Amino acid sequence: MYSNIHMPKGFKCAGISVGIKSDGVKDMALILSAEPAAVAGVFTTNQVCAAPVKICREHLKHGVARAIVMNSGIANACTGSAGMVAARDMAVETAKGIGCEPQEVFVCSTGRIGPQLPLDKIVQGIETLIDAADAERVQETAEAMMTTDTRPKVSSVEVQIGGETVRIVGFAKGAGMIEPKMATMLSFITTDVAVEQKAFQAALKKAVDLSFNRITIDGDQSTNDTVLALANGATGNQALNEISDDWGLFVEALEKVCHELAMMIVHDGEGADKFVTVNVVGARSDAEADLAARSVANSLLNKTAWAGEYPNWGRVMDSVGYSQAKVDENRVSIHYDDVQAVVNGMRTDVAQEELIKVVSQSDFAININLYLGEGKATVYTCNCTEEYVRINVE
Amino acid sequence: MYSNIHMPKGFKCAGISVGIKSDGVKDMALILSAEPAAVAGVFTTNQVCAAPVKICREHLKHGVARAIVMNSGIANACTGSAGMVAARDMAVETAKGIGCEPQEVFVCSTGRIGPQLPLDKIVQGIETLIDAADAERVQETAEAMMTTDTRPKVSSVEVQIGGETVRIVGFAKGAGMIEPKMATMLSFITTDVAVEQKAFQAALKKAVDLSFNRITIDGDQSTNDTVLALANGATGNQALNEISDDWGLFVEALEKVCHELAMMIVHDGEGADKFVTVNVVGARSDAEADLAARSVANSLLNKTAWAGEYPNWGRVMDSVGYSQAKVDENRVSIHYDDVQAVVNGMRTDVAQEELIKVVSQSDFAININLYLGEGKATVYTCNCTEEYVRINVE
Repeated sequence: MYSNIHMPKGFKCAGISVGIKSDGVKDMALILSAEPAAVAGVFTTNQVCAAPVKICREHLKHGVARAIVMNSGIANACTGSAGMVAARDMAVETAKGIGCEPQEVFVCSTGRIGPQLPLDKIVQGIETLIDAADAERVQETAEAMMTTDTRPKVSSVEVQIGGETVRIVGFAKGAGMIEPKMATMLSFITTDVAVEQKAFQAALKKAVDLSFNRITIDGDQSTNDTVLALANGATGNQALNEISDDWGLFVEALEKVCHELAMMIVHDGEGADKFVTVNVVGARSDAEADLAARSVANSLLNKTAWAGEYPNWGRVMDSVGYSQAKVDENRVSIHYDDVQAVVNGMRTDVAQEELIKVVSQSDFAININLYLGEGKATVYTCNCTEEYVRINVE
Repeated sequence: MYSNIHMPKGFKCAGISVGIKSDGVKDMALILSAEPAAVAGVFTTNQVCAAPVKICREHLKHGVARAIVMNSGIANACTGSAGMVAARDMAVETAKGIGCEPQEVFVCSTGRIGPQLPLDKIVQGIETLIDAADAERVQETAEAMMTTDTRPKVSSVEVQIGGETVRIVGFAKGAGMIEPKMATMLSFITTDVAVEQKAFQAALKKAVDLSFNRITIDGDQSTNDTVLALANGATGNQALNEISDDWGLFVEALEKVCHELAMMIVHDGEGADKFVTVNVVGARSDAEADLAARSVANSLLNKTAWAGEYPNWGRVMDSVGYSQAKVDENRVSIHYDDVQAVVNGMRTDVAQEELIKVVSQSDFAININLYLGEGKATVYTCNCTEEYVRINVE
């Protein structure tokens, strides 16, 4: 699937099975940079957060990375001091293997909350991964990140910076599932361009806000959510920052990779078969537009209605109304794609069949105008099917 | 079912079919007080709210009621000025029929958002209801309030006030269903004691906060949610207020009726077969305890795990952590009933089977201690089954 994609210059990767998951399913991955890379990171804001997230936050202060080492199957969350030791050991062992400082290694875990990591298996795995790492092993790496994802997720973009072709390759796993034991969003982004760390961090934060933070499947936020980005400068350009000529091009490419990965996550929402874009315009502010869009996107009443291909604009009105965004019901308009269902807070005389046609598609938009200001926001979500509940009940 | 319950002194009621719903299902109800009653009301905070809610808010300013008239099947929400005219007409026609001022009539609707009410049917219905009203027609009245409820909901309590037996009889319909077209909580409470309106309003507000506002099924809030309480003083007592000797007894009885009705609503949550009580103690404040409890109770991940009888304490930790309540994960303890699953944010060595035993019951509690203060709160909820989604998808 991603066999034609190779890593940016100076990066290697690998994905293997070390026996955390059963049946030889891949459960460990490594991304290596030959040279120290500028690193940026964005993490879960959950107050209950996994040991590896704490380690990453600590290491990010140094701003330099040589490796990301990760496992799937066990989240290393709610594991106390033993969990912290295990996460730190993962960094230390990887650092030993490649010859760098432990704080240059970033650690991630995803999977079941509670159990301790099997450190012996992990230490062995790190050795194997270092030996196996290769610029071509993109597919295996993406596979090793998966938990209940149905497919690996990789995005690759090329862009001309200072006359050189630079590449950005990103990996992700979904927060899309509703599997009660595992639900985390992880993404690793690599590029061979040189970027100043501070500017890189700001650019990543913004790219995440525009992509991973725009998707919602179950409204829950994991203890392990992490996005890490490494820029190793292997193309030899002068390090980019906000005032560089090519800064806009780089940011655009970074945002494109994040957006593509985020869309892959929603499309892979467990049991979901409809991709729904909720656009809100005309709010008093972008923040209020965001609140209204999320309220619509997270409503279980809306999500089940979409599954039933029922154009329940009344439920959309309802969920806009109880959002924290200011709403004047007599101004609200709602379009399903370009078919107007609501004008001035009341239904139009459009035929119900026209609306059913829209929500029967596998991909449609709900476009809401609050007519109160200039604020706008978009949130991407999916429907909620019986299948989705069945997966989680079982 | 409620054939042995009769209305408090001076009250009559009736429930009939006027053809808003199909198949002769009851869809209109009336509650009458022979004398003007003090009235209290609590309404949805949704910014999109139904015409009858607007009318009730207006009429509540006068503080006196003779009747509640209601229909099910159509919500009269998002119906613009025509909807306001219809809601006002319901009050005017009822007032004409019984000989009172329109502002002494309170109007409620529940059902589909969008369509206009069939006013001719409603006006005819009002006549029939006035003729049919009777102190014994409690069951029919409760039935006429139902939308996707599976059973009518009535609670009746007697209490001695000043040596007299006074009665409180309350009706409710559920917000429990996830039917995308209809999802509203309505409750009407009647008592033959005399209560000063201001004190009554404060008591009702508190009783609602402790009952209807403690239940959560889908997290959504309807455009039509309304609780109305009428106290007609037919027992001839001196009007109660906060400094009356028997005030505490009255408040307790009022809260008991509200609590019983709220519990009936959760137990009737559509497709749900487990009743779950989420208790949070040790928060920095009651408000933060409430935020934490709601976060746990509204998490779809938790609700589907309960349906699967999987004691996912990790998901409970997760949803406490992303709540807006302050949490120190190293202090959190979680008990399933009295079986401790988590201590200091980590799992205990209790056998998984012990926890499974608890969540396999049809009624259990999740008891969370944050160990940060004295704040506490309880929220009642239910599980999320495939059946629940199926009902809403169909």
